[in-house]
Amino acid sequence: MRAALSLGRRGLGRVWPNPAVGCVIVKAGRVMGRGWTQPGGRPHAEAVALAQAGDAARGSTAYVTLEPCAHHGKTPPCARALISAGVARVVTALDDPDARVAGRGHAMLRAAGIDVVTGVCEEAARADQIGFLTRVTQGRPMLTLKLAMSLDGRIATASGESQWITGSQARRAVHAARLNHDAVLVGGGTARADDPQLTVRDLGARHQPVRIIAARRLDLPKAGKLAASAGSDLWLLHAEDAPEGRRRAWQEAGARLVQVPLSGGRLDPGALMQELGARGLTRVFCEGGGTFAASLLQLGLVDRLMLFTAGKAIGAEGQPGLGALGLSALADAPQFVLRDVRALGGDTLSLWDRA
Amino acid sequence: MRAALSLGRRGLGRVWPNPAVGCVIVKAGRVMGRGWTQPGGRPHAEAVALAQAGDAARGSTAYVTLEPCAHHGKTPPCARALISAGVARVVTALDDPDARVAGRGHAMLRAAGIDVVTGVCEEAARADQIGFLTRVTQGRPMLTLKLAMSLDGRIATASGESQWITGSQARRAVHAARLNHDAVLVGGGTARADDPQLTVRDLGARHQPVRIIAARRLDLPKAGKLAASAGSDLWLLHAEDAPEGRRRAWQEAGARLVQVPLSGGRLDPGALMQELGARGLTRVFCEGGGTFAASLLQLGLVDRLMLFTAGKAIGAEGQPGLGALGLSALADAPQFVLRDVRALGGDTLSLWDRA
Repeated sequence: MRAALSLGRRGLGRVWPNPAVGCVIVKAGRVMGRGWTQPGGRPHAEAVALAQAGDAARGSTAYVTLEPCAHHGKTPPCARALISAGVARVVTALDDPDARVAGRGHAMLRAAGIDVVTGVCEEAARADQIGFLTRVTQGRPMLTLKLAMSLDGRIATASGESQWITGSQARRAVHAARLNHDAVLVGGGTARADDPQLTVRDLGARHQPVRIIAARRLDLPKAGKLAASAGSDLWLLHAEDAPEGRRRAWQEAGARLVQVPLSGGRLDPGALMQELGARGLTRVFCEGGGTFAASLLQLGLVDRLMLFTAGKAIGAEGQPGLGALGLSALADAPQFVLRDVRALGGDTLSLWDRA
Repeated sequence: MRAALSLGRRGLGRVWPNPAVGCVIVKAGRVMGRGWTQPGGRPHAEAVALAQAGDAARGSTAYVTLEPCAHHGKTPPCARALISAGVARVVTALDDPDARVAGRGHAMLRAAGIDVVTGVCEEAARADQIGFLTRVTQGRPMLTLKLAMSLDGRIATASGESQWITGSQARRAVHAARLNHDAVLVGGGTARADDPQLTVRDLGARHQPVRIIAARRLDLPKAGKLAASAGSDLWLLHAEDAPEGRRRAWQEAGARLVQVPLSGGRLDPGALMQELGARGLTRVFCEGGGTFAASLLQLGLVDRLMLFTAGKAIGAEGQPGLGALGLSALADAPQFVLRDVRALGGDTLSLWDRA
């Protein structure tokens, strides 16, 4: 199952709205087939592994990281394919909560006389599938928030000087993280200040995540890197009060516009995440800015935190990496559980999950 | 030498103004004597190890973490003791820059026909002796700054609520760090707000570091824990404008008063550290507050940083863990090199050295 989980992870960021599943087919102690959900979400992991195993699948054990699907979608049901191939035993990590599956995959296999074992490595599988599960159960993608700050929590001097807070290895880790998310999301302030490309550079990446900017009035630079690279992979979240001229200009540039309701004078963070979920996204990587990040944290929408700390002190007059949260008591502070911490070049990287 | 370094570390925080030295005496592959500088600074490591080895010292190799002293201080010179004991070979890690030694210890040994090897594990020895070396070369103790903050660099909510930012394991690590420093130092604001004991609790500690408060006008609570526990181990740093009545009251309570010149309306941080060095301190552990810590950082007086990060976000309106540094450019930001980072309970602990 560990091998299947590892294969499944290869699809993270590239298979949305589908789950990134891994499958290993074993007979007499030998691996006969290995598969993972292919880019775009099809074919499914089981189909790939069964095709590789061919006749050897007969009498084998299939390890699958998620309950095989039981419904005809764009592909025939995987449970049916496992039965037809003559698989003798199916071991899965996680039940699929999708209403079209929800136990039917396991039931279909059992009805065909296959020995079914479930819940193996369930915790690890749940961590990998957090994006898919969050979308199915809450209608929104999972959200990872990246914060890269000085050791006193600052991202710039009082005058706004901010380049190179963290080192090259930290930046590389950010690019790798973009790659295993479906989309990268920033607030309009960051887009105006930094004009970021938000693409994955180096790492031999051929696939690129969707780029999303939350910009209420579409007040974004028309002559920058974003505009030059606009296409269907650039999604702009705006409110109803975004000027018609700007809407038209960005649409003509090829960007995809998504209207989001306002709440308290800003794009409603909860509604925004629902819109992204409705469009199929399962894993979103938010890179700030601090005010936008705070609005997501405030509503409990941040599932994971990726915190880079650089060996610099900027001081209290510097710009904070995270905006105001409006806490009335310390007990209300958003709380996270440490998952991992390590040195990364001269910086530290800590990974946290929502408590 | 690794064993001698490890023995030497036992004295850290307990032997000032002396260096915490370790010594191992080996003959024919067997350890004949082990010693480390005893609490209060005497006897020296070599004397302890030689006494343990007795006659077996004849023809042995002595591993010493610092050049043996060559002068009559409160103990006879260790170089002389090694010669008298008939040691054949002396291996040291570090030259002693003290003007009374400065090569004379090694020279005395060589003149007596002893084979001398120097510079073994020098880097590790230098890290252990940073307090002693800083005092000898700069006249001030080394300074470790502790910061314990939320993941966005805050120590309290806007209303000042601040208890329990980090967990019990982090607090235990703070107590252990107090124990290997000669003194604990806080600003007056922290003393007024928290009325801390600044003692080492648990850990079976019998020795306590000196407690130092920097309080310009001696404006400290008269009815708190500090006052109740005042004694010669409580040092109060004040300016010339501290009211006479308060000086008398604290002196009568048993505290030791140290006058420090003012600079820009606050105790001059550089002069303050020189005063502590003049009184023999080699290792000082500063625990804030944020404004006082910033004044030390600003002047390049922080040699090491101990940064605890808790899995909480407090937001930009919360109180910063570090005060203003008055940077005009990011290039002027105090810079630190990562030495270690690890998980500690639910928090992270990173250790940094001044770049």
